[in-house]
Amino acid sequence: MSEIIEVKAGVEAENDKYAAEVRKLLRHHQVRMINLMASPGAGKTSLLEQTIDRLKGSKRIAVLEADVDADVDAKRIEAHGAKALQIHTGGACHMDAYMTLKALENLDLDQYDLIFLENVGNLVCPAEFDTGADLRVMILSVPEGDDKPLKYPLMFQVTDCILVNKIDTDEIFDFNLQKLEKNVAALNEHAKIIPISAFTGSGVENWLVYLREKIFEWNYSCH
Amino acid sequence: MSEIIEVKAGVEAENDKYAAEVRKLLRHHQVRMINLMASPGAGKTSLLEQTIDRLKGSKRIAVLEADVDADVDAKRIEAHGAKALQIHTGGACHMDAYMTLKALENLDLDQYDLIFLENVGNLVCPAEFDTGADLRVMILSVPEGDDKPLKYPLMFQVTDCILVNKIDTDEIFDFNLQKLEKNVAALNEHAKIIPISAFTGSGVENWLVYLREKIFEWNYSCH
Repeated sequence: MSEIIEVKAGVEAENDKYAAEVRKLLRHHQVRMINLMASPGAGKTSLLEQTIDRLKGSKRIAVLEADVDADVDAKRIEAHGAKALQIHTGGACHMDAYMTLKALENLDLDQYDLIFLENVGNLVCPAEFDTGADLRVMILSVPEGDDKPLKYPLMFQVTDCILVNKIDTDEIFDFNLQKLEKNVAALNEHAKIIPISAFTGSGVENWLVYLREKIFEWNYSCH
Repeated sequence: MSEIIEVKAGVEAENDKYAAEVRKLLRHHQVRMINLMASPGAGKTSLLEQTIDRLKGSKRIAVLEADVDADVDAKRIEAHGAKALQIHTGGACHMDAYMTLKALENLDLDQYDLIFLENVGNLVCPAEFDTGADLRVMILSVPEGDDKPLKYPLMFQVTDCILVNKIDTDEIFDFNLQKLEKNVAALNEHAKIIPISAFTGSGVENWLVYLREKIFEWNYSCH
């Protein structure tokens, strides 16, 4: 049985205040946090399994697994040798900064270099809440379709990086990567787009190159 | 350009009151409404295209297309000869009964037999709101995985019917229908589960059989 932490949503108007508290806490312990967002079943946990396997010799990783219910994801993460805390959101469809702060208080932050916050599977509300993370990464999976930026624009606007998962099925689902790139560019010209398959491992190394560059920048920045 | 209706969320505590108003309105005009819910990209619009094509000789259909943004889905529905109203939810990640009532006020309800409410792509919040619909149908698509009832239990509890879409890809995604059925049965023993492919059309006729049975029951019920 994984450890399960119950958290309650904070007051929305105070989210920025709590996001600043999260950042202060992370900086104090010299740890960085990545907010990973996607639809249900897009492959968040599979990506984390691949990422942990490739980083575990060099980085100490913990994962906050946010879900409405269950602890199946936390168990999968622990099987790959990383610390996992299962967070139950009390029915909330997203993590806010207050919930993130409360979840982080259950970790000995000096023991980690990187925290992944696996947000609740949802393309709408998680985009609205700054959790205090250093990087926002979203996964769009190929079966969802290349038109999703049109319908969920905020998520594509706020993200730093878009991992296009299940890319090995692009022909089956008639998914056009160029069309996706065009739809994203209209909303966010800075987002890095990386096609991957968390199932076959294809492209995952490109994600690791991007992530290692970010870690390098963080280590040599003044903040 | 499709007609776009902007609606704002109602007061949550008053949702039941508005759901009753929606039901009264629908009964007055002898029309039935189906609340269709799913993750982004699960195939809601594709299912509606298939459904409209098969029912359009016998039933007059309108679709409320709820999205945070865009009108791509309304255009797809109109191309199949049904009335479509694009509803923009003002950032809300679900439709509530008040929003549904306001959307319905834009339709001449005497002109229709069936209304499909295509909810915002989200497995969490739409499950929490009674919209006044006569039937709740959800789509789970095979690439999302057979473990989703564990993580989004409320959606699987409140639904009358689960359409398992993209069933033609079950081997690629190692999706186990029996495992899904077991996970659903633990939450909801009454839910009808129908595997379909809205892409190939396979199984869609089974959904139509189910829907026609419901329509028959409604026509011969006292309410």
